[in-house]
This record gives sequence, structure tokens and C-alpha cells, in this order.
Amino acid sequence: MQSKSTDASATKGGWVAYRPDIRILDCTIRDGGLINDHQFDDAFVSSVYRACAAAGVDYVEFGYKASKKIYAPSQSGKWKFCDEDDLRRIIGAKKPGGPKITVMADATRTDYREDILPADRSVIGCVRVACYINQIPVAIDMIKDATDKGYETMAQLMAVSVVQEHAVQDALEIFAKSPVSAVYLVDSFGALYSEQVNALIKLYKQVMDGAGKEVGFHGHNNMQLAFANTIEAVVAGANRFDATISGIGRGAGNCPLELLIGFLHNPKFQIRPVLECCRDVFAPLSKTMDWGYSIPYAITAQLNRHPRAAIEMRAGPTPDDYVKFYDAMMQEES
Amino acid sequence: MQSKSTDASATKGGWVAYRPDIRILDCTIRDGGLINDHQFDDAFVSSVYRACAAAGVDYVEFGYKASKKIYAPSQSGKWKFCDEDDLRRIIGAKKPGGPKITVMADATRTDYREDILPADRSVIGCVRVACYINQIPVAIDMIKDATDKGYETMAQLMAVSVVQEHAVQDALEIFAKSPVSAVYLVDSFGALYSEQVNALIKLYKQVMDGAGKEVGFHGHNNMQLAFANTIEAVVAGANRFDATISGIGRGAGNCPLELLIGFLHNPKFQIRPVLECCRDVFAPLSKTMDWGYSIPYAITAQLNRHPRAAIEMRAGPTPDDYVKFYDAMMQEES
Repeated sequence: MQSKSTDASATKGGWVAYRPDIRILDCTIRDGGLINDHQFDDAFVSSVYRACAAAGVDYVEFGYKASKKIYAPSQSGKWKFCDEDDLRRIIGAKKPGGPKITVMADATRTDYREDILPADRSVIGCVRVACYINQIPVAIDMIKDATDKGYETMAQLMAVSVVQEHAVQDALEIFAKSPVSAVYLVDSFGALYSEQVNALIKLYKQVMDGAGKEVGFHGHNNMQLAFANTIEAVVAGANRFDATISGIGRGAGNCPLELLIGFLHNPKFQIRPVLECCRDVFAPLSKTMDWGYSIPYAITAQLNRHPRAAIEMRAGPTPDDYVKFYDAMMQEES
Repeated sequence: MQSKSTDASATKGGWVAYRPDIRILDCTIRDGGLINDHQFDDAFVSSVYRACAAAGVDYVEFGYKASKKIYAPSQSGKWKFCDEDDLRRIIGAKKPGGPKITVMADATRTDYREDILPADRSVIGCVRVACYINQIPVAIDMIKDATDKGYETMAQLMAVSVVQEHAVQDALEIFAKSPVSAVYLVDSFGALYSEQVNALIKLYKQVMDGAGKEVGFHGHNNMQLAFANTIEAVVAGANRFDATISGIGRGAGNCPLELLIGFLHNPKFQIRPVLECCRDVFAPLSKTMDWGYSIPYAITAQLNRHPRAAIEMRAGPTPDDYVKFYDAMMQEES
């Protein structure tokens, strides 16, 4: 089967290729935590961590380093804060040999100077800084702070489907001069079609290749395209991919880890430990927790809007009244 | 956003393009009927037909023209046979002005000479002949028979993911000389990745363009790729697309009609009547009937195998034991 593109610099081979440089980040606990305000118990977190370690996943993201001045620890679950003691209770006292422990730090919602310890006093190995286009200066300061403390850092530029490409390019050039190891294309609204992912990944790579940084992709399943778009990002030459077990995540969820590993056929990754975790943890969990594609998410994504309204509608009294929701959304558009 | 391909002959424009030549075939009743042996009641069939008519869908496929010598009408539902009286009870006495009524005729399982009436005595407008690669001679005879009787005909060559490309090409060249209006790429096992869809659609078009015939695509959602692969087929230049309301269909189901219409932004097609049908018919139906993606379908698709074993497993006593299923499938592979 011939490759789709003849641009050798962008395409690293089709679906049969072996790509040893690919790294997977599992954000099951972090993105899944957006469903239940990070209230997962230790048994769940431990199961996910152990499954990822056995599967050969490179990074496991536990949650956020959210500001305790903004969010009350008595209200939210502990994985919104990822205190050192909580992490160590799951993974042991030392930095583990398996997946690198990762936390997300939201620009303007993290007391990063105080709450992110020096790396030699933490089991955390990587800090991912998430920001919107207008928060770049804060993000750069956070990246420098975490790098100075000894962490690997990555950048997640959110909601690019509503940012003009020249602004995205400006942001990328700033990240290219920062110490991040990777910059992720984030499809916050699940609104990107594959050809847009292809074009954006090429733009990201154009800026990052010269800077020696990797490009990543984080999809959402609002239009049943999270896995397809992740494949497209693989084909377009990205090397870092986010996935979650059973596709768990806020709203329509994410790219399922078991599909991504099945696609890669990379001997580094094993699907069986993920299937065990799906059977033992996620099949029961799906009886009591709601995630995954449904029509309201497709409607917000088709309109290139945040899925907020769809999430509220699905949690409300008429979760299946797609017409009322569609009419309300179209009313707001007009 | 630039288009993925620079091959103007294959790509008819990216996701913003207007493609008035596109035709949608709704196979909700036919492919959904594979779940319940075509036992849908008249109210369901009428709702689907009316929703498709209001949405501007071009063809509505009601079911099969199965042989009553092979299948007992007392056992299967009436949409396995699509008798003239049953069709007329739904749509009225005459050929309607709305969507063209379509039936599928399986090679070697249809008494086509007797059971397909002359077109002027039927409300049916189009006969789709489905066959495997080794049934081409029968399919060609069926196509000629239906054409001679006055019908539009189309061909569905099934399971091409396990047929070598030179054999596919031979088959296409035979169809190119037949009177069919369109030939569909059918991803029977839900095993094709987008780059394979792209390459195959281009192969189909290479043969069919010269013969003045259209190329179509029928996807399955075993790896959450039915919609993504349909988009890929659009971008690669196909013009005929199968979809089902709410993605209903045997096993992992099909490309959801509501997603396809949302993607096309084609003024001919309206999403709202489909959303009404999703709300009124499919949201309640999903409480009692099982369809859609689950992990066992991904496992058979990753192995490029028929989903038969996954369908049986999902209907059995341990529908969530993905590991046992994976181990059994891998055992058969070795």
C-alpha cells in the first residue's frame, strides 16, 4: 500500500513503518479526573499506573498542580494537586524506573514557584505546561522555573482551532527558544479534521525540527476522530502522543490507548496489560461514570466550540434531546 | 488550511469545499437489520425513511432480496426479503419523488431472476449487488438482470482488505465494463486505516473514471475509524457514501449519518431531521439493542479478520473479558 504523501521530510512511513522514536503519554488519571474533579481512589490510580508500566508507556500523567489558593483541597480530589506524599503512596519513595511521572500545570492556575519542588526532592519527572495563546508569557516563566528545578518540560498550546495560523506560528517560535522538550498540538474542542491535523503538525514540525524539539498530539473524540487524528499526526511526523485507557476523559474523551498501541505495532508497547485494565477497572467503571462520544459533542465540535454546553446538557434532565440542543447552539451562532 | 494532497486529479478540495456531486445512501434499515435479523416494525422503518427524505438523502436501502429457498420467511424479518407489498405499505403505491428505494442482493443468496420484478412494477429504484472476489461472475449476471429490468445498479465488492491489489484491480476492470452506476470500496472488517482507504479509492477511481462510473465507500467502526475513513474517501475523490442514523449496524456499526452531513456542509443535506430521528427513535432503541464500538471489534479489526467472533463474544456470558478474547484470537493466529 503506498504512502499517502510523497513528502519524505514530513512522512516517516505509512502504517507498516517502525517508529522507535515514538513516545506515549498516558493521561488517563489527569484527563479522566476532569470527569469527577480528580476524586479517583488509590486503587484506581495504582491500577492505571501499573498497567501503563507493564504496557511500556513512557509517561504517566497523574493530574494537575493546581493552586490551593484558587481551588479548595477539601472540595477537589487529591489528583488536582498531586502532592508529593500522594504520588509516593502510589509509586513508592523514589523516582521509578518505569514511566516518567508527569503533572500538568495550567498557566495562571498554578502556584508553581512554591508548589513545584526541586526535582531531586520529587518523584515527578516531567511538568507539562498548558496555556491559551494569550498566556504564553506566564507559560514561558513556568517552563523556565520547572527546567531550573531539574524537570523535563513540555508545552500544551490549547484551543488552536480558534487561533489564526500566524499567531500559532508566533507562539511556536517562542516555545522553540524555550527549554521544552516537546510542543503538543491540542485539539481542545475535538473540532479538527484530519487534513487540518496534518497541516498543523507540519507547521509545528517546521518550527520545532530546527530547534531539536519534538511535536506531539492530544486529540478529543467529539466527532469520533481522536484515534484517526492521532494516526494522522503519526503519519505527518509527530512523535509524542497522548492517550487514555478506554478513551476516558471529560466529555467525549480521548484517543484510546489500546487502539493507539494496536496501530503502532511497536515492540516497545504491549496491548495486553491495557486490556487487563480495561476488563478489571474500566468495564465496571463505565457502569457508573459517563464518558465517550455522543451527539451533543459532535454538535459543539462541528461549530468549533468548547464542549462545555454539551457536557452540561448530558448531565441535565434531557440528555437525549439533541434537537433542542442543536437549536440552542444555532441560536447562539446567529 | 492547505489541502493534504497536491494531486488535483484525486483531491477535489479539502474540508471547506462544496461537492454538489456527492450522493448519500442511508443503509440504516438494511445494515441495522443485521442485528435483529431484519425484524424492524413498520413504525421504525417509516421513521427512518421519512427522516432520510427530510434530510435530503439520495438513496434509502431497506434490506435484502434474500432467497426464500435458503432463508425461511417465517424465521427472518420481512426486510430480509423486501417484498413489494411491504415496501409499498411504508412509502405508498408509487415510486416516490424523494430518496430512491434501494435493496441489496447478495451474490449466490438471491433468486434474482424471480424475486426482482421488472422496475415498472416495483417502487424499488436501485439494486446493489454485493459479492466476494470469487463471486464476480454471478454478480455480473445479477447486475445485467437488474439493469435489463430497468433498475439502476451498483456493486459492493466485499472484504477487499484480504484481497491482493492485482485481484481487486481485475475485479474493478470487470465492473467497469458492466452497467453499474457506481462501485463501492467496502471495509467489511473495519480493518482499513485512512492511508489504505486513500490508496484504494485512488485505485478504484483510476479504473472507474474512464468508464464514467462513480466510486463509493462503505466503512465500519471496528476501530472508531468509520467516519474518519469516509472523510478520507471524500478527500480522495469518491462521490457515493453509505451512512446509518446513529451509526447503527452489525457489530461496531457504520459511519453515523449525522456526522457525515455535519462534515459535508452541503446545502442539499439537512442534519436536523436526522437529529429528530436520533432523539425519538435511536436514543430509546439504544437502551434495548446493542451496537457500536467496543474493544473486541478493535481486536478482530487489528488482525484484519471478520468481526464474527467479536459479535458472538459480545452476545455471550463474558462480554467484557477482553483478555480472554485477545488470547483466543492470538492463539488462532499462531
